Amino acid sequence: MTVRLGLIGCGYWGPNLLRNFTKTEGCQVVAIADQNARKLDEMKWLYPVLKTFHEGEELLASGELDAVVIATPTMSHYPLAKVALFGGKHVWVEKPMAASAAEAEELVCIAEQKHRVLMVDHTFVFTGAVQKIRELLRSGEVGEVYYYDAVRVNLGLFKHNENVLWDLGPHDLSILTYLMGKKPVAVSAVGAGFVGLQDWRQESIAYVTVWFAGGILAHLHLNWLSPVKIRRTLIGCSRKMIVYDHLDPDYQVKVFDRGVDVETAEQWYQLQVQYRSGDMLSPKVDQSEALGVASRHFIDCIREGKRPITDGHAGLEVVRLLEAAHWSMKQQGQRVELSA
Amino acid sequence: MTVRLGLIGCGYWGPNLLRNFTKTEGCQVVAIADQNARKLDEMKWLYPVLKTFHEGEELLASGELDAVVIATPTMSHYPLAKVALFGGKHVWVEKPMAASAAEAEELVCIAEQKHRVLMVDHTFVFTGAVQKIRELLRSGEVGEVYYYDAVRVNLGLFKHNENVLWDLGPHDLSILTYLMGKKPVAVSAVGAGFVGLQDWRQESIAYVTVWFAGGILAHLHLNWLSPVKIRRTLIGCSRKMIVYDHLDPDYQVKVFDRGVDVETAEQWYQLQVQYRSGDMLSPKVDQSEALGVASRHFIDCIREGKRPITDGHAGLEVVRLLEAAHWSMKQQGQRVELSA
Amino acid sequence: MTVRLGLIGCGYWGPNLLRNFTKTEGCQVVAIADQNARKLDEMKWLYPVLKTFHEGEELLASGELDAVVIATPTMSHYPLAKVALFGGKHVWVEKPMAASAAEAEELVCIAEQKHRVLMVDHTFVFTGAVQKIRELLRSGEVGEVYYYDAVRVNLGLFKHNENVLWDLGPHDLSILTYLMGKKPVAVSAVGAGFVGLQDWRQESIAYVTVWFAGGILAHLHLNWLSPVKIRRTLIGCSRKMIVYDHLDPDYQVKVFDRGVDVETAEQWYQLQVQYRSGDMLSPKVDQSEALGVASRHFIDCIREGKRPITDGHAGLEVVRLLEAAHWSMKQQGQRVELSA
Amino acid sequence: MTVRLGLIGCGYWGPNLLRNFTKTEGCQVVAIADQNARKLDEMKWLYPVLKTFHEGEELLASGELDAVVIATPTMSHYPLAKVALFGGKHVWVEKPMAASAAEAEELVCIAEQKHRVLMVDHTFVFTGAVQKIRELLRSGEVGEVYYYDAVRVNLGLFKHNENVLWDLGPHDLSILTYLMGKKPVAVSAVGAGFVGLQDWRQESIAYVTVWFAGGILAHLHLNWLSPVKIRRTLIGCSRKMIVYDHLDPDYQVKVFDRGVDVETAEQWYQLQVQYRSGDMLSPKVDQSEALGVASRHFIDCIREGKRPITDGHAGLEVVRLLEAAHWSMKQQGQRVELSA
Repeated sequence: MTVRLGLIGCGYWGPNLLRNFTKTEGCQVVAIADQNARKLDEMKWLYPVLKTFHEGEELLASGELDAVVIATPTMSHYPLAKVALFGGKHVWVEKPMAASAAEAEELVCIAEQKHRVLMVDHTFVFTGAVQKIRELLRSGEVGEVYYYDAVRVNLGLFKHNENVLWDLGPHDLSILTYLMGKKPVAVSAVGAGFVGLQDWRQESIAYVTVWFAGGILAHLHLNWLSPVKIRRTLIGCSRKMIVYDHLDPDYQVKVFDRGVDVETAEQWYQLQVQYRSGDMLSPKVDQSEALGVASRHFIDCIREGKRPITDGHAGLEVVRLLEAAHWSMKQQGQRVELSA
Repeated sequence: MTVRLGLIGCGYWGPNLLRNFTKTEGCQVVAIADQNARKLDEMKWLYPVLKTFHEGEELLASGELDAVVIATPTMSHYPLAKVALFGGKHVWVEKPMAASAAEAEELVCIAEQKHRVLMVDHTFVFTGAVQKIRELLRSGEVGEVYYYDAVRVNLGLFKHNENVLWDLGPHDLSILTYLMGKKPVAVSAVGAGFVGLQDWRQESIAYVTVWFAGGILAHLHLNWLSPVKIRRTLIGCSRKMIVYDHLDPDYQVKVFDRGVDVETAEQWYQLQVQYRSGDMLSPKVDQSEALGVASRHFIDCIREGKRPITDGHAGLEVVRLLEAAHWSMKQQGQRVELSA
Repeated sequence: MTVRLGLIGCGYWGPNLLRNFTKTEGCQVVAIADQNARKLDEMKWLYPVLKTFHEGEELLASGELDAVVIATPTMSHYPLAKVALFGGKHVWVEKPMAASAAEAEELVCIAEQKHRVLMVDHTFVFTGAVQKIRELLRSGEVGEVYYYDAVRVNLGLFKHNENVLWDLGPHDLSILTYLMGKKPVAVSAVGAGFVGLQDWRQESIAYVTVWFAGGILAHLHLNWLSPVKIRRTLIGCSRKMIVYDHLDPDYQVKVFDRGVDVETAEQWYQLQVQYRSGDMLSPKVDQSEALGVASRHFIDCIREGKRPITDGHAGLEVVRLLEAAHWSMKQQGQRVELSA
Repeated sequence: MTVRLGLIGCGYWGPNLLRNFTKTEGCQVVAIADQNARKLDEMKWLYPVLKTFHEGEELLASGELDAVVIATPTMSHYPLAKVALFGGKHVWVEKPMAASAAEAEELVCIAEQKHRVLMVDHTFVFTGAVQKIRELLRSGEVGEVYYYDAVRVNLGLFKHNENVLWDLGPHDLSILTYLMGKKPVAVSAVGAGFVGLQDWRQESIAYVTVWFAGGILAHLHLNWLSPVKIRRTLIGCSRKMIVYDHLDPDYQVKVFDRGVDVETAEQWYQLQVQYRSGDMLSPKVDQSEALGVASRHFIDCIREGKRPITDGHAGLEVVRLLEAAHWSMKQQGQRVELSA
């Protein structure tokens, strides 16, 4: 069976989606939609066989598709996905999955009722680096996670109607929830917008704290106004520590032979005297394009009736955290307990 | 006039203090005190002319000193400084200035009553890098500060009876308050200690937020359990942005020709398309040892009756912030308003 | 007038050429040729309007082209370019321009006789970084060049029938000759091939020295077997010094406020005491794709009858240096004087 | 038995020697000599018990020493060491061991006749990093060395009467010969001095090639006029590759799971497609001060009648290479065969 697929939204990410899905075995891209005629023309020039539509709803109504990729602004994820699922289509939706947890939850329910695949494009989860870290965490080799510190800062706004939390946050929150494999218990966030900017009420810098059971702390620094680009995560575990630097092409993942657990005063003294306390291993990491891995996974899930790694529940978890963090940010950092 | 000086406390920082004060013109180190006889012997071997005492109080009572350097654990800063000031001595006290804001405030009052110099060793303030940044901020060239983000993480605990906030926090808070030159309005902090550690109730990782008037946000990441050492501060200003990396020997200060203010959609688009939006200048930075600059400053203030840059008020400000952040951390990040 | 263009050779670099020429205004790609049918099919799928040929000669004989891009293995550059020029076509040829200086020289003559544009794809010359450095050197701001040191090392062989000199050398030699703007006077080279390799008689590592008048020294380190990738050039000038690091996305060009000229012993002493002796400026560098700039330049030269920056003479100069260096390498580093 | 030791030469390196030997067990520093009275006074202030002499010969004649450390300019190493050895003293001599191979050879002979320890201060050989690399090479784990590429460049001249070859070369040549453990067969070198400099006939930049049996190539880039400081060595071996970066405090030694040997075309293809071809391990490296390790080794050799790792033969080897490279440099890079 070949999955007949349509793409709604040909903006920033659209060409990458199209390039990857056209290469994916078992999948045939047949139609695209975008309200911007120029974008449609550009795509049509590259892929002349594609049918084009101006509205996503038209594409969905055209009746010849098995699956749809929704890459529109966040506001329209929910209405388009809902129509698609009720129309019996499998759905791939961009991150964040929806504009609210209520919307996300409804989509999860519909997908389950209709027995359709609902996958959220948490692309980073499919990188070789994140897969390697998951493997390290699962193997027991590094011990328990004690803290998680992620920095994602750069210069340049990517989406105009959102703050930095909703724009950059889904990346780190999807990696975090995937790696931790357990529910967060509380969230807080602080942030700031700046008067010189176009829409200064939108936060351009945000700090998010996520608590997990057992006193485990995760923290994100998200920033659109940094003069330097940093994508670095520290994961402190009981037996070893991990540094994940997305921008270091040679050593994306580093594993340090030293964990958080230090038993004696003598060991502490050694830590001070000698800076490094053990070997560092930078394992080979698969450099395949994550979006290609993800698109294959989506098609495989459809053909084999499997649940995607980044399914609707994963997408909902991220939206819940964003929503809670947003509320906390507006309350100047008040902690929000998350229901179990 | 030559300032006759005594040093109390020959621990980790003591030898550096001694080495610098012995080289400082207009100053003669005459006595040292430490409860640890072995430390005293080591110092005596290097500087055979020094008188030695086991107790700081004995040194203070010996009657032949103009000034004293207090480099003991934080708990004893207040009692020793109080005796010294009442004894008419000028006082240099290590950071943090005292164990509580009440103690710090009392020392400020006594120093003023007694007309003695009270200087806190906020060493980083005297580095060429911090002085250069202050100059940039004062010149108007970089515009207004909008945000300040400092990361100070490494592997290894330096003081046994304190948490990471009181150990690493004074460095960044003293730089921050010196550079901002205005009062913070509120503080919050979150942190975590870990079961595997000697004293797991003490936080080994802390995130501190400091608000200034006008929505300006400062944030610190302090961490004893990081596998990598990072000492990096981003300062986002309206016209330019500054990166201060203490560990980069060649380019400690970088000034980017791009500020937070972005007026048009076109400019935002440019930011996305071209990663860097202007030149970067890394100004030459004076590499003189900061502690040497600070020790000369102390002696100069005594001889010329000047107020030190890092006087008791500066020390008190840092202790107030530490105290408020500590309280917030115990309340899971509740925001603490600071009285004007 | 629209330039009707054909591409011969759809290997590693071919898709990049096609992507850029299809976007170039005033140019229409009409035909491609490759002996590998699979490559042709892949291209055809992406660009269905293209005519395809198996042999470059067939494409050249098809009679409807104004210009041709030759991206085949080096051995066939000369015969194909010769046919094309005699057929009245403008020619873009990949680097190195030909397999010998004699071949390159003949192509230069034919192009001049036939009044056709002959351009060699010295892509790096069209990068924003190299253009910026040329501008710095021409402005007089940095003074005279005294030495030039280039390192181009990585893991992985790119062309199977050549040694590292002919593979990586054209990049640095084309940048060097473009920036220096004067004739080299002598060349030497040493190198080594290794028994474990497929073709161990081919050198995988080479060091090339190029002398210019006035004792100016240039040196290249070319290496296919380096575990780390380095692309760094130091240019020591009399008034300032330049570092060009192709792999540093943020600071490709750095200009140091310190030149080779040091007049007094006191200045030398200062150099020792303080590591950096002045400011460093990293100018903004145009990040446009160099191949796009080059392809526009080729079309512009054809339409306006201009001589390309990287014309046949520039290509010949590089081939002469490669040939001399190759000979020297086989003579264990004997210096080869170059005729004026 | 306690070794009674004298130091001749209190210049740049003298204080480091004194600090280390005064801490070395089994050794008592009793006298120092320097023609510069101010230097003597500075040392005397720090170490009041030392006897001082203006001339090294006076110190040697004072009759109460077992061993002497010679840290004077290179020209005087030979006459002082000769007097010392004939006087029955063990000798530590700074690098380079002597101003010519003939001088070095004579010192080796005298030391053997007199049964005295003759050690050359090849400090880098005693670093944790070089020891770790030696261990890796000996273990067989990394295979055979195929090439060795060392870069040692910075801004600043250290010795006034020498060129960069004799100043920086001894560091890399001593590491190279120690690690290779076999005799080099030939040497060549090119270099340049620059008119703007104090003594422009002295080379400020030099490239040295050293051939070993079996086609193994070593290459050094030595430069006093680089705007950036680099201390990096690549060692390509048949099974793994090593990068030694002296300035990277965290990862001085990196071992890459990929050697020079590549057997099939498929493997070459993989090298191209995926940049890194295996794991990278950065082993923990002993951070003890190398000079302290070396000074203990000297005292141990004296007390136990052992031959030092960096004995006169090692020093002679380095001087032979310097002499041959110097000659080649004056002949514009002519290769010099070394007698077995």
